Amino acid sequence: MTFQIDPRLEQDSLPILELGLSSLRLMNEARYPWMLILPRVPGVVEILDLSIPDQLRLWDEIRLVSHVLREETGAAKLNIAALGNQVPQLHVHVIARFPHDEAWPAPVWGVHSPRPYDPAEADVLVQRLATAIRG
Amino acid sequence: MTFQIDPRLEQDSLPILELGLSSLRLMNEARYPWMLILPRVPGVVEILDLSIPDQLRLWDEIRLVSHVLREETGAAKLNIAALGNQVPQLHVHVIARFPHDEAWPAPVWGVHSPRPYDPAEADVLVQRLATAIRG
Repeated sequence: MTFQIDPRLEQDSLPILELGLSSLRLMNEARYPWMLILPRVPGVVEILDLSIPDQLRLWDEIRLVSHVLREETGAAKLNIAALGNQVPQLHVHVIARFPHDEAWPAPVWGVHSPRPYDPAEADVLVQRLATAIRG
Repeated sequence: MTFQIDPRLEQDSLPILELGLSSLRLMNEARYPWMLILPRVPGVVEILDLSIPDQLRLWDEIRLVSHVLREETGAAKLNIAALGNQVPQLHVHVIARFPHDEAWPAPVWGVHSPRPYDPAEADVLVQRLATAIRG
């Protein structure tokens, strides 16, 4: 069984780079700087269902991505979540939140239909995040 | 600076037990089995702001609590999240979700005003969860 990204997650997001365990993607929603961390492990739905070493690798990746997102955006608050009620394939949301954003203080899910980035703007952000993550 | 639980979190939840790092509480919302993990570290808002050893302890506690919640409830899906847009004091939500619950498949936050447990029912659930967590 090889890993394939869920088509809904793929359609809603843009690739940033490959981490050791996970694919890192940018949600194509210009309202919020919002990344998805997707462990490339076939058939996994819950963090608990990863092996313990993979759970620790995921934790490290969440920490790295959170740190970079906060540094690069000056986020007032990070929102970090593994939900998966709509798309069960394991994915972790890491979202930069601001008191002036359109959903604040509510969570971002289900508030609006996504407003896609201008492609050039998305490309700049993807490159900036990838560079920061490569350190 | 000593740790004090935020009064809103305290009011909305019931104590289950003390873990090594965190206080574990049950949200007083009978619609969903929903626990809060609150690291007893004063002034911390983001997981990133914990020391690395405390981050690892928190990860272990999230893992334990998630495992027990799934075992005890037969949850179809776990929702695990650190948001904190309303109450900045660091707290991690671990929620058992079911396709028949009242918010499914949306996240639970902000959907309803909480429906408090009958006190006897809450007590039974708290004791059951505490016993399972003590293992």
